[in-house]
Formats: sequence, structure tokens, C-alpha cells
Amino acid sequence: MAGFGVVGGAVYRHLCREAALLAGRCGVRPVITAVAVKHPGWMPRRKVHLPRSLVVSCAMELAARREVDVVVELMGGCDTARELILASLRAGKPVVTANKALLAEHGPEIFGEANRFGTPIYFEASVAGGIPIIQSLREGLVANRFRLIYGIVNGTCNYILSRMAQDGAAFNNVLREAQELGYAEADPALDIDGIDAAHKATVLASLACGGCVDFRHVHVEGIRHVSAVDVRFAHLLGYEIKLLAIIRAAGASQVEVRVHPTLIPMSNRLATTAGVTNAIVVRGHVVGDIEFSGPGAGGDATASAVLSDIAHAACHLRMIRATENPGSFHAQRGTDGGRLRPTHHRPLIGSLGPQIVSMGDVISRYYLRLSVTDRPGVLAQISSILGKTRIGISSVLQPEGHEGGAVPLILMIHDARNDAMFKAMRRIHQLKCVKAKPVMFRVETFET
Amino acid sequence: MAGFGVVGGAVYRHLCREAALLAGRCGVRPVITAVAVKHPGWMPRRKVHLPRSLVVSCAMELAARREVDVVVELMGGCDTARELILASLRAGKPVVTANKALLAEHGPEIFGEANRFGTPIYFEASVAGGIPIIQSLREGLVANRFRLIYGIVNGTCNYILSRMAQDGAAFNNVLREAQELGYAEADPALDIDGIDAAHKATVLASLACGGCVDFRHVHVEGIRHVSAVDVRFAHLLGYEIKLLAIIRAAGASQVEVRVHPTLIPMSNRLATTAGVTNAIVVRGHVVGDIEFSGPGAGGDATASAVLSDIAHAACHLRMIRATENPGSFHAQRGTDGGRLRPTHHRPLIGSLGPQIVSMGDVISRYYLRLSVTDRPGVLAQISSILGKTRIGISSVLQPEGHEGGAVPLILMIHDARNDAMFKAMRRIHQLKCVKAKPVMFRVETFET
Repeated sequence: MAGFGVVGGAVYRHLCREAALLAGRCGVRPVITAVAVKHPGWMPRRKVHLPRSLVVSCAMELAARREVDVVVELMGGCDTARELILASLRAGKPVVTANKALLAEHGPEIFGEANRFGTPIYFEASVAGGIPIIQSLREGLVANRFRLIYGIVNGTCNYILSRMAQDGAAFNNVLREAQELGYAEADPALDIDGIDAAHKATVLASLACGGCVDFRHVHVEGIRHVSAVDVRFAHLLGYEIKLLAIIRAAGASQVEVRVHPTLIPMSNRLATTAGVTNAIVVRGHVVGDIEFSGPGAGGDATASAVLSDIAHAACHLRMIRATENPGSFHAQRGTDGGRLRPTHHRPLIGSLGPQIVSMGDVISRYYLRLSVTDRPGVLAQISSILGKTRIGISSVLQPEGHEGGAVPLILMIHDARNDAMFKAMRRIHQLKCVKAKPVMFRVETFET
Repeated sequence: MAGFGVVGGAVYRHLCREAALLAGRCGVRPVITAVAVKHPGWMPRRKVHLPRSLVVSCAMELAARREVDVVVELMGGCDTARELILASLRAGKPVVTANKALLAEHGPEIFGEANRFGTPIYFEASVAGGIPIIQSLREGLVANRFRLIYGIVNGTCNYILSRMAQDGAAFNNVLREAQELGYAEADPALDIDGIDAAHKATVLASLACGGCVDFRHVHVEGIRHVSAVDVRFAHLLGYEIKLLAIIRAAGASQVEVRVHPTLIPMSNRLATTAGVTNAIVVRGHVVGDIEFSGPGAGGDATASAVLSDIAHAACHLRMIRATENPGSFHAQRGTDGGRLRPTHHRPLIGSLGPQIVSMGDVISRYYLRLSVTDRPGVLAQISSILGKTRIGISSVLQPEGHEGGAVPLILMIHDARNDAMFKAMRRIHQLKCVKAKPVMFRVETFET
């Protein structure tokens, strides 16, 4: 195991405690033989006791050691983690990782090497913590084409947005509170700017498409610009604002992959998914909509997924060894009563798969909040611009209340291309009657 | 394949249409070689065209035929289906089945033979249709002990109860409507008396415990006695009435397994699970609560699960053959890039596992509706009986309104043993001021 932080510590603790349970259930008893720790000197301060005899200071040693059968990478980052994973795959040691950043940004390289050397890589913990979404996409729903996958995949953002929705609190105050509670990092950028969610969206999209999608083309917006006033207006209109990852098939060889704050109807189950919970809806062409929800982060929930992957890796090795020594495998079959079950494994091709649709070409609905002067003719000017860009208004809300001489005007916009909307917004911003930069969020109903 | 009804037809259609998809994803192309049909004469009327050359009239032939590698049992019932499955397992042909009744009522025999002959049996479609709950319990959550599993596992009952909740309609009217829409059978007893849900609860409990639980000891109540007035009062108190399957670990070697209408708080996500949707919450000791929801019945959703099992069975055979001819397996590994993935398989022991707690010993909260005379002293008499049985009242609701001289009195009861509650109800019923048989439903909050 490389890395001994919150997740690593939890994996170690549960693996030691539940070794008999795992052995009974999958017929293989995993034993931790070495743990690579970044700063071995910090050891005494850790909550989980790690025997000094297991500690190694160089992670790369794991790929080289003879007694290591499976490498569990929980260190994060794209430097040493990448090297360790590549070396392990080349050495024929199955890899278990929770590293969504690495898989999203170096997918073709990682999966390419895994395929080239025939070494499996498991990454259930990389998306939505303890929810078995990866296995469900690959196996339980194997007969389905995935037209749509959408979900709340970042617990920090969902915690902040649901606190804003409950209490009408301002973004900055809730962020500070989340940091105090340990739900947000001291440097929260990776979470609140949507990057973590985009990494997960990339992994999900690659699985759905059967080939890596290019992370660099994923449209990403975070939640810094979501204000209490927009949350309140959204409520008035019957919507909740959530940071969603959205993956939608677009024709045979293209896919939309995007992360942005989204207005969804209150009746959608994701609207009531509060706190650090994750929730993902998968729309399969055979099965329809399946929703998964549960703890998307935290040491224990993530450890549950890592342990499941370790069990898979252990069984894989057992099968490989059985094929090298068929007699022993048949002997096992007799006594174990079919414990060892091979399954289908949808391979991730180690090259770029379908192209991501450019955001300008994506069609969606919109919530548009303008700050305008309280004079007659304003709505006419704005709707004239929208009309010329062939963008239809579905409803208008002009609530009471002033913002320093200006009044808010909320427009709900029909299906329109994003580039048309961007163009219209630029023109609207130039109007004299418009007093601030227009605020725009996309609206999705996910109707079938 | 045995059986060509709604599910069989859907499996056949999707398997023919998506053969290339399945072959690409799991490296094995399943081909249907024979379909056992009960009344081959009816063929022309079927929606799905089935070539006559595939039709066999005797299901048992499937277990005997050389060209049949996997037997898919979708005929239902416990007679021919049982014989076919046993014969197939003994012949070493992996079995795929959606037959929860058979697994619940003959689990020890079926799993016993599967283990004895080392032949796998797959049954993802037996619980919650297209939701991959079985695989998630066995594999994705393999590191967890399951303290609690609860859920809506019968779409017919949930459709009826949610229509009653939405419209205040009476049970019989909604049942008739459900029958007209095809959501309920002409003979609806299996569904509305809770038997189907109890079959599914038995399968889930057996998986959670790792050994078969005895279906005959499962406490089963259906929804015939749920009235519009109770749904309305439940709403007033902040609850929804749902037919739930509840499986709760009780000590080391006992388990509660019960199916009954249950009041759950509106804030529980299952309270807003409407229509024929199924939803299951799994509480694991490592992961916490994971919820799955989706279509629990219907040809397509069930076919999605059956097809996933067929893919598993196909990969199992491929691995077996590889071990018999190791050279070919290694050759495959090189070209297929690790497509074949063995996994852990929590075996179901073919003998009775943990004992089911007697319903009298189960502790729960209660909703109690009495029809009483509108005179002083009534509440005193009732609360005196409850007090003597050491049953605590948590709240009282006496709404306006008369029922032919009697008034409704609703008591919410603290945690108490079921046998104490039954005893108190008998005594209360004997009171002169009580005008009808008391109506009791259990209340669960599922707090952690």
C-alpha cells in the first residue's frame, strides 16, 4: 500500500480487523506486507497504529518487491503515483487505486499499459466513494448503452450548496464553516472549482463510452459564483441548484461531458440529496433509470470500495495461478463450491475514445438573472436581443426588492445552444439598462 | 432458455439485438440455442418473433442437450423450474434465474446442489428487477457486515400505496385501476399479501447472512388492511405508509426478516419513492448507508439483470475451459488485455443459516388507530392498559370527525416488543368504549 492518510489508514484498519470476514467471503486472505509512507517520522501521531516493520519510505519499492502481489495506490497526485502504477502494471502486479485525477489526466497511458501487460487495474474508489458505481456500470448493467449519466459527485460542493439552500447563507461563510468541519480542504480549489467532479466525470464517461475521453475538453464550472440570491430565486421557481457532472451520449461517436452548477426540479431525487452525500443516476437503454446514493467521501466509505477492489485483485491472482497449475484449481473447485467466480470485465481501451462535444454546441435550458434599472422598456430591449438570437423565453420573474437602484430580473430560457446564449449574454451586458454582469446557470430536467 | 413470457421475450429481443455489444464488452458472444415454451401453439400471437427451430416443448431437455452451455430459467413456479434447475446444476450447466419464490422456498436444496457440483447459479433478476443489488451485496460491498437492509421491493404494492397517498383513494379502487394498467395481476394475492416481497426479503437476508434463512419464519403482512384514513393520519403525523422488507441483524446468530406496511418519516428517501419503482437501503458497517433505486419489475428492467447474469455465466465457462487448456487462456490474455476478470463470489451455503427472530420478540414503534366513543375517560382506560403492559405513548392525535358515533383516536407508541403490543391490543379491543378492531402499523425511522 502506498499512502497512509485518511483513506490508507481506514483501509489498513478494516483490512486487519476483517481479514477473516474477507477470507471467508472470497476465499483469499489479503495480508498487508508493506506500506509506503511519505514521512515515516510522523508515524507516532497517526490514529491507526502501523507496525514499523511494514513501513517503507520509497513507494517505488512496492512494484519491485517479490512478496508484493497487489499494489494499492492511495497517495494521490500524478507524479510518484503515476510512476508507481505504471511500474506495477509492467511488473504484472494488479493495481488498486482511488486516484481519479491520475485516471482522468493520464487515462490513455495507464489503461494502455494495463492492456499491454494484461494486468488489471481496479478503481472503484475513484468515483462516489463507497457507492459501487464502477462495477455496476461495467457488470451489473453490462447489457446497456448509457444515454445519460448525471450526478452529484463532489461532497464538499454539495455540502456547501445544501447549507446555502437551507439557511440562505452566503457562499464564503458556508465555505469557512465547511473548512472548520473538515468537509473542505484548506485549499478548496480542487473541489469548489469543479475539478474533482470533472475528474470523476471523465472516469464515468470513459467507462460509459468504453474508451478514454479527453479530460482537457471537459467543460468545468465550479460553485464560487453561486449566490444566496440565486438559490432563493431558484426555490421560488421550483428548482434546487446542484453541482452536477453530466455525461450524455450525442450521436454515435460524440459525448457531452460537463460539470457546472445546474438548476434541477425539486421533484428530482438529486434535489433532496443533502450534505456530503453523493448520488448518481444512470440511464440505460434496456433498464431505464437507476439511482445510486450514499457517502461519496471519507475514509471508511472509500475504504469499503478499496477493499472490494483488493478482493477482486486477490481472486484474479488466484485464477491466474490456477491456470498455471490447473490441477490445484480443480481441487479448489471441489472444496470451495464455486467461490471463485470469473466475471465480465469491460476493458478500457488505452486510447482516446469518443470526442467530447464542444460546449458551444451543447443545447440546454437556462436561468438568467439580470440586474436592471427599474424603468419601462427594459424587458423589451432584452427580449429583442434574445429574439434576434432565436432564443425563446419560457418565463419571467421580477421579484420585489432593490439592489442599490437596480432590480433583479429573472428569465427562464427554452432549449438553446450554449454559443447562442453566450452571444446573447454579451449583447445584453452591453445594454445601458443592465447594471451588472448577467448571471447564468443551466437548467436540466432529465426527462426521458 | 425456459419460459417465454414478458421477461423471456425481452431477454430474447435484447440478446439478439445487442449480441455484438455483449461480445465486445465481455469477450463472449451468447447465442440462444433453444427456448422451452409451455404452449408452442400460442407462438403466432407473441410480440417477439421466435424462430420455430429454436422451440422445444419440454424444458427438461435443456439440461440434457449437449449444445446448451447455460440454462436461463424464466418460467417461474416451483415445480418444473425446480427440477430443471437441479438437473442443470448436476449436469454442470450454470443457471441464471429470476425465480425468487423458488430460491426463497427451496434455497437450501438449490444452493446445496450448486455447491455440491461446483456449478454457479446467478439470480440478479430475482430481487429489485434491474437494480444490481445482488452483485453489490456480494462484491461491491464485500468488506461490510450488513446490520440493516430495508426497502420497497414490490412495485405493485408501492404503486397502490402511492396512488392512495396522492389521491386519498380507497384500496379497492386503486387495485382495480392497477389491474387495468397491468401493474397488478388478475389474482393479485402474491403481491398485495406481501408474499412476493417476503420471497425477495428471504433472498436478501440469505445473502446478507451468508446462509439461507427459512422463508417459513418470515413475518409477512400485506397491504389489504391499509385504508385511506390511515394514509391521511400518517401524513398528518409526518409519515408515509410503505410496504417494506426489513432485514436487521440481531446479535451474532439471529436476524429479523419481516415484511409489513410501515410508517416511515417523510424525510426518508423511500417515502418519496412513488409508483412501481423499487428502492433498497443497505447499511454496511464500513460504508454506511447506500441506497439503490430504479425499476423493480417489467420485461426490460428484468432482462437487463438476466443479461448481466448470462454474461457472468459465459465468462465463467470461458475461464473453466481456459483452465482445462491453459495454453489457450494465456493466448487469450495476450490479445484481450485482461478482459476476463475473476471476482470474489460470496457463496450461499446450502443449509439453513441464522435463525429468524420470532416476531413477538421484535421491538418497534407503532401507530395505533382506535375507533372509540366520544366520552370522557376513554383515553384514561386505554393508557391504563398500555401502562400496565409497560408500553409508552409518545403522542396522541384525536382529529375532528365522526365515524357513525365513534371517533378516531391515534396513538404513537414508543419502542415496545411485538408480543406486548399484541397483548395490549387484545385488551384494548375488549373495552366497551372501543368500537372496532384496533388498527396497528409499525413505525420505523431507521436512525443510525
